Formats: sequence, structure tokens, C-alpha cells
Amino acid sequence: MNIDRMQSISARIKGNKVFELFVVTVILVSALAIGAKTYAIPDNTLALIKILDWTITLIFLAEIVIRFLAEEHKRRFFHNGWNVFDTLIVVVSLIPIEDSELALVGRLVRIFRVLRMVSIVPELRLLLNALLKALPQLGYVLLLMFIIFYIYAAIGATFFHWINPALWGDISISMLTLFRVMTFEDWTDVMYETMAVYSISWVYYLSFIFLTAFAFLNMVIGIVVNVMEDEHARERQLQNDADGVPTIEDLSRQIEELKQLVRERA
Amino acid sequence: MNIDRMQSISARIKGNKVFELFVVTVILVSALAIGAKTYAIPDNTLALIKILDWTITLIFLAEIVIRFLAEEHKRRFFHNGWNVFDTLIVVVSLIPIEDSELALVGRLVRIFRVLRMVSIVPELRLLLNALLKALPQLGYVLLLMFIIFYIYAAIGATFFHWINPALWGDISISMLTLFRVMTFEDWTDVMYETMAVYSISWVYYLSFIFLTAFAFLNMVIGIVVNVMEDEHARERQLQNDADGVPTIEDLSRQIEELKQLVRERA
Amino acid sequence: MNIDRMQSISARIKGNKVFELFVVTVILVSALAIGAKTYAIPDNTLALIKILDWTITLIFLAEIVIRFLAEEHKRRFFHNGWNVFDTLIVVVSLIPIEDSELALVGRLVRIFRVLRMVSIVPELRLLLNALLKALPQLGYVLLLMFIIFYIYAAIGATFFHWINPALWGDISISMLTLFRVMTFEDWTDVMYETMAVYSISWVYYLSFIFLTAFAFLNMVIGIVVNVMEDEHARERQLQNDADGVPTIEDLSRQIEELKQLVRERA
Amino acid sequence: MNIDRMQSISARIKGNKVFELFVVTVILVSALAIGAKTYAIPDNTLALIKILDWTITLIFLAEIVIRFLAEEHKRRFFHNGWNVFDTLIVVVSLIPIEDSELALVGRLVRIFRVLRMVSIVPELRLLLNALLKALPQLGYVLLLMFIIFYIYAAIGATFFHWINPALWGDISISMLTLFRVMTFEDWTDVMYETMAVYSISWVYYLSFIFLTAFAFLNMVIGIVVNVMEDEHARERQLQNDADGVPTIEDLSRQIEELKQLVRERA
Repeated sequence: MNIDRMQSISARIKGNKVFELFVVTVILVSALAIGAKTYAIPDNTLALIKILDWTITLIFLAEIVIRFLAEEHKRRFFHNGWNVFDTLIVVVSLIPIEDSELALVGRLVRIFRVLRMVSIVPELRLLLNALLKALPQLGYVLLLMFIIFYIYAAIGATFFHWINPALWGDISISMLTLFRVMTFEDWTDVMYETMAVYSISWVYYLSFIFLTAFAFLNMVIGIVVNVMEDEHARERQLQNDADGVPTIEDLSRQIEELKQLVRERA
Repeated sequence: MNIDRMQSISARIKGNKVFELFVVTVILVSALAIGAKTYAIPDNTLALIKILDWTITLIFLAEIVIRFLAEEHKRRFFHNGWNVFDTLIVVVSLIPIEDSELALVGRLVRIFRVLRMVSIVPELRLLLNALLKALPQLGYVLLLMFIIFYIYAAIGATFFHWINPALWGDISISMLTLFRVMTFEDWTDVMYETMAVYSISWVYYLSFIFLTAFAFLNMVIGIVVNVMEDEHARERQLQNDADGVPTIEDLSRQIEELKQLVRERA
Repeated sequence: MNIDRMQSISARIKGNKVFELFVVTVILVSALAIGAKTYAIPDNTLALIKILDWTITLIFLAEIVIRFLAEEHKRRFFHNGWNVFDTLIVVVSLIPIEDSELALVGRLVRIFRVLRMVSIVPELRLLLNALLKALPQLGYVLLLMFIIFYIYAAIGATFFHWINPALWGDISISMLTLFRVMTFEDWTDVMYETMAVYSISWVYYLSFIFLTAFAFLNMVIGIVVNVMEDEHARERQLQNDADGVPTIEDLSRQIEELKQLVRERA
Repeated sequence: MNIDRMQSISARIKGNKVFELFVVTVILVSALAIGAKTYAIPDNTLALIKILDWTITLIFLAEIVIRFLAEEHKRRFFHNGWNVFDTLIVVVSLIPIEDSELALVGRLVRIFRVLRMVSIVPELRLLLNALLKALPQLGYVLLLMFIIFYIYAAIGATFFHWINPALWGDISISMLTLFRVMTFEDWTDVMYETMAVYSISWVYYLSFIFLTAFAFLNMVIGIVVNVMEDEHARERQLQNDADGVPTIEDLSRQIEELKQLVRERA
């Protein structure tokens, strides 16, 4: 059997709707197996799940091989992030792990198989890409927020360190405490504790809450405006592309032609 | 009395404003009776409420019968979800329940009578329909969120299971705990508990909060953009439909006619 | 001195910037006095504040009288809600109150004097009117939310009554508890308590949270869309009103005139 | 070496990309040093950090001097708020502080050095300016919110003072408590405590929550609408400025010219 034929057969299998549905089903079964393992289950069921696990791994291996064979340009296969992700998941699943330390990694890999749902269902892939694309736009706002956090954490660790080391012990713990304050989680307990020593320290908390809330708000508005602009641009494009609907430029051209006509005929 | 006459009479009653107001009043009284029963009330008042209850059930039965008779095509009556809902409520109310187990069901049915408010007031029905119509648009975002929840719950149940089984016992309890974390409800207590064992576990919580917050934000923006687009489309439609207001296409046609005129006359 | 002259003098005083600034200052002093009284202050200062209080009342009385005299049509004076509010505040302040029960009312009235800030500063009055105008648009959403609350409270009071009467004692306490759940305030404590008895009761809480969050979201979007539509309508109006900028209708008319011209001249 | 040459050299250094990158690196090192000091570190490392600290101060001093020399109009240098900020930070860092009281101020100044990140990176400076520019638009809403807070705090301090002085002792503590209620932080504990005395006091809390939530919502919508309007205005401007794309006004002019042409030629 030559390589070209193998590729065409693989491509046909890969494009087959039944095959896709089968893979989605296997992913679902794999997700259920992961969920089942978190319950207290009898040993024979556990053995069954182990067999199921290996079957799933083999099916995933077969699927990856088929998809790889279906690819015309083998090199491009690994240019797609999702393909790399799928291959990694399968390869790590194949490594027999006995050591208890690494067993956790093995479990994690099995859990991340559920993410294959995203790589298989095109709508989810699109959604995730859209989410990821929106992230860099927020880059500078996130940087500004980090600077705010860093400065407040440095102040907190410097002044409140001895009041409660569990909350203000060092700059990283302080940042975690500030994140907690930002989510309003028992933030008054944190505040009352330091206000008992520095009665003015409410200024610290309130200014922090206002600053982060304001920056967060700004971030949200930034995303909304961005999304809407894209929407408007797309709409304008649609309007321009629509056949038969004249634009103001068309009108202008028509009138110029008319002028020419009047000049000629008169 | 023949059927046609009954139908016309029923239709007249159904369309009557006084009848509608009467039904709304009965629903309000039924709602008040439900509320009253939750207070500690003397036995004779309770007996009174029981009589009121039966009267309400009978009035509702009468109303459903009238509405059914008023319907020209009897089969279509049950195509309307609200009619099915109303009929079910009345039918279950009629079943005499003595058994304490089923008595709860009977109580529930009486409570759901208040929902008839929505089926009677057209504005509320419209509002609810609008809410339900917006739901499927969110389908894939909800699916993505479920996948995020499932993966994090699987990780949580695997690693934190022995730390606190009440929070991380199995995958479903873990999902409930994660929902709690998402609402920021005492989430630091949950985090500090696991950080005492795995000091790195704050990464788990913070990444989860960022992911869900980001997906949630995306969902909200999705709805807003959808609603606005509908609005814009409706507005454009309105503009196009307005009599006497010419569109650019009309202008283009006018100019073409003018050209023709110039050509002919010259 | 005749009435007409008194009116013109009053109108002049009322329109005077210095007078307005003076009244704003008096309101501020009155607000500070209210704030000062909440601190533990020596008796002689308290006596001073009491004198200040009476002076403020008299100035407010004088101001109301001047504003009333400045009004051309005396009857219209009380058509303005703010005038009624101001007069009430002054009149109740004048009643000498000794009884401890009523003393609280007297204090409240003095506190509400701060609200006069809103009635004096036009920008704040505009803002409040805008807020109030947005309220009725939300009427049906608020009604729907109330129905959701009522039904869930009835269910809660029926099933959880005996678990914790302090939270689910009757339908009104249950509604308060549900409001608490909606604000995510220690809602898991409430849930875990009932889950100990009815393990399925998480469905009750989660469905409630989703329903109210969704209705709330809808409400917010409703307001945003409304505000934006008003904005767009205003903008369109502005565009149409702008002198010299022709609309598409003007263009159409121009072309028609041109056609007429061509027809005549040819 | 004359002054003109010094200025041109300074300007060349200041504009140099490597110099900018070097300053950013120094700021980052300074930030890390601040963070490191919050950990328990051995004495010799502390000594090292102290030396690092002085080096950073000297580099910052050199940088400010270069930037000052590079400025053509020396007076304008201090018209820029960021230059004033940078100079202050450096000058205060130079003062040798031994006194433990002032040592805290010295530490604070070192922490605020991180803010120099904002003054150096132009994108962050732009972002911060945009945030600050949005603030005054919210002025009246913030004033209205303050009035709401003040009135509720006055009522709270008057009626609940003796129930819990720690929460309602005077008007400023009451305002802090109300801010806590607004963030939903254990607000039911506060409410239940006063409801034990005044059972009607839930009205106080719920009305406060509704008022502030509503005012806050209004503020957010205000910002969104403002941002969008700016966006639309900018877009319209862009459309008008675009070369070759005719406006309706251009069309109108063209038609008028055509009319003239027809009149002349006929």
C-alpha cells in the first residue's frame, strides 16, 4: 500500500461525520470515566475503568495517526497548536507510570483529555480563539493593574507585616490578600484588624478598591467598545459589498455622468 | 345548546376585560393565600383558606374550560405551552391528596399557580419569551463554562479529596464548591485550607476565577451585542419602511430617470 | 408696600447668585451640624448646635417665603414636588418636639435637610429626575423578579420552615433570605444547612441564582439599550436640525426640481 | 563645554532606545528590591540591597539631570506633572533618614518608584490619562452618592448608635459600615443585629442597596455612553476627512451645479 493511497483513505475517514461523532463519544466516555474515578467505587469497577482508559488511549492514538496521515504536508501538522496538544496528551498517556509522584501527572493528563472536546467541536474552537484574541488588547490595563497591586502589596507588607504575617507576611502573600480584598471576600475583617493599629488604614483599602474597580470597569468598557467597533466595521463592509445597493460615491459618479451628458447634448 | 354557540359565548367571555381582571384578582388572592399559609395561623383561618383554595381551583377549572371552548381548533389549544401549563396546574390541584409524601407535591402545585400571573399578563409573557429566546444564543459559552468547571472539578476532586471531603469529595460536590468560589463566597477559606497542604494551589483558584470571569464577561458582551444588533436591524427596517423618506437607492433611480430624460429631450 | 413690588424684589433675591451660594452654604453647615451631633460632644457645644439648628430653620423659612413670594402664580408653587418637600421639611422643623418618641421624627427631618442640596443644585436635580425616569421602564422586569422571589420564598417557607425558622420562618423572612442569597452573602451556609436535610436542595439555590442573575442582566441591558436609543434619536434630531447640512430628502427634492427644469427647457 | 552642546548631547541620550530600556530595567530592579525586602532575608543580602538602593537612586538622579538638560525651555520641565513626580521621588530618596518615624516615609518613597514605570512607558501614561479624564464626568453622580451615603449614615448613627458603637458610633464609622454593606460584605450580620431591635430596619438596608446599586449602574452606563459617543464622533470625523469619499453636502453641490448647467445650456 503506497503512501498516497493511505493519505486519501485517512482523509476520507477524517472527513467522515460518523468518525467525528465516534471521537466525540469517546471523549465524553473518557470524561465520564474521569468523573467516576472521583467517587468511592468498588475495585472491579476500577479495573473496568482502567481497561476503558487504555481503550480510550488507543482510540485517541489511532485518531491522531489517521489525522496525521490525512495531512498532505506532514510538517504543517504540528504548526496547529491543537494538533500538538492532542499528540502530547496521547503520548504522555502511553507512558506507563508506576511512581506515585508521576501518577498525579498521569491523572492530570487524563483530565485534560476533556479539553479535546474543544479541539474537536469547531464552534468551541472558534469561541476559544475569540477569547484568546481579546486577551492581548487588555495587556496594558492588566500591566497597570499589576503595578497597582505591586505598590499596594509593598505598602501592605511594609506596614502591616507584624500585625498579621499570615496575610501580610511578604509581597506575594500581600498580593493574594489584596486580590481577596478586590473580590470583597471578608475584606472588612482584614481592614478592621489593621485599623485597630493604624486607624487611618481604611484609606488604604478604600483607595485600593476604587482604583481596581475603576481600572476593571475601564477594561470591561474597552472590550465592549472593541467588540462593537469590529461589529460596525463588519456591518459597513457588508453594506459596501451588497450588490445593487448604491453608495454615495456611486451617486456622485452618476451625477457626474449626467453632467457630461447635459454638456454633450446641449 | 349547540357547540358553535357555546364557542362564541366562551370567546366573548374570554375577550372580556372584566373577566381578565377577575382572573388576575383570583391569582393574586391565591398568591396571598399561599403566603398566609407560611405564617403560624389559627385553625379556623386555616379552614377558611382551605375553602378559599377549593374555590380558586374551581374558578381556575372554569376559566380553563371557557378558554378551551373559546378555541376554534381544539387541537391547537395544547400546542400553546402556557395552556398545557395551566391545565396541568388545575388537574393536579383537583386530585385529592391525603398522603403526606404527595401532600408536598400538592403544595408545590398551589405555589406554581402564582406563575399563572405570567401566563395571563401579556407583557410578562413577552418578557419571559424574550428571556428564553436569548438563552440558546449562549449555548456554546455555557458548554465551554461547563467544560472548564468539569476539568477544574476533576483536578480538585483528585488532589484535594482527602483534605476536605465535604468540599472535594467527588466531582459533583467539587463543582458545587467551584460554583461557590465563582460567587466569591468565602472562597479564601476554601483556598487557605488547600494551600496549607499544597502551597501552590492558589494558582488553581486564581486561574479558575480568571477563566470563569472572562468567559462570563464574554457571555454578557455577547448578549449585549446581540440585543444591539437586533435593535439596529429593526431601526434600519423602520427607516426603509417609512413612507416618503427616500433611500439612496431611490436617489439613484431618480438620477437614472433624469439621465433618460436628458437623453430623450436633447 | 404692595404685593407686586414684593414679588419683584423676591424674584430678584431668588435669582441672585450670592443668595443661592448662601443657601448652599447653610445646607452644608446644617449637614455638618447633623454629622457633629453623632459624635460624643460636650454639652456647651451641643447647646451651640441647638442655636445653630434654629438659625438654620429660620433661614430656610425665610428662603421658602422668598421663593413663594417670587412665584407669579402662587398656586403653581406647590405643583413642584421639590417645593412641597422643602416646605414640609421647614414646617416640621418648626414644631417644638419634646416627646422622646417624636424627637426621632424631628431628628430625621433635620437629616433630610441634606436632601435640599439636590433641590438647590440644578445638575443634581436633573440627575435624580433622569434616575427616576428610568425606573418605570423597568416595571415589568421588577414585577417578574418579584414573582420569582415570591414563588421561591413560598417553596422555601414550605419545605425549610422547620430547618431554620430564623431564615425560613414565613414568606417575608424567606424573601429576605433569598435577597441575601442573591447578593451571595454567606449563601453557602444557608444552602449547606438545608442540604443536610434535603440533599437535592442545591437545585433550588442554583436555579434561583441563575434566574435572578439572568433577569438582572436583562434589566441592565434593557436600560443600556434604552439610553443608547435615546442618544441615537437625539443625534438624528441634531443632524436633521443642523442648518445647511442637506438630508437625503433634500437631495431627492433637488433632483426632482432638476427633472422639472430639464422638462421645461428641452 | 558650553550649555548648548550639553543640551544636544542630553537630548541624544534621552532619545536613545538603549537608554530608555536601561531606565526601565533599573525601575524593574528597584521594584524587585522593594519586593525582596518584604521577605525575611539574611543581613548580608540586606546590605547588598542597601547598596543597590543607593545605586538606583544615583542612576535616577543622573536620568533626571539628563532629562532636565535635554529640555530646551528649562521652565517648562516642571509644567509636566510626571517630571515633578520623578524629581520629588529622587530628591526625597537622597535625604539620609535615620529617624524611625521618617524611615517609613523613606520606604514609601522607594515603593512609589515603581510608579515611574507609568511615567516611562508611554502606553501606560496614555491609559492613566484616559482614566483620569473620565473621572470628572462622574463628578455629580459621585456627589449624589456621597449625599445618599451621608443621609443614611446620619440615620444609622442616630438610631443604631447604642446597638453597636463599633459599626454605628459616629457618622464617619457609619459611612464605612455602609460602604461595607454596599460591597455585600457580611451585610446580613449588620442587618440582623439591628433587626433584633428595630424589626423594620431591613427597609433601611434594602433601600440603601437599591439606591446605591441604581446610582452605580447609572454611573457605569454614563461612562459607556460617553465612551461610545466619543467613538462615534471620532468615526464621523474620520469619514468626513477621508479623501475622495463624497458627503451628502458634496452631492447637493453637484446637483446644484448640474441645475446651473441645464439652465445655461438650454
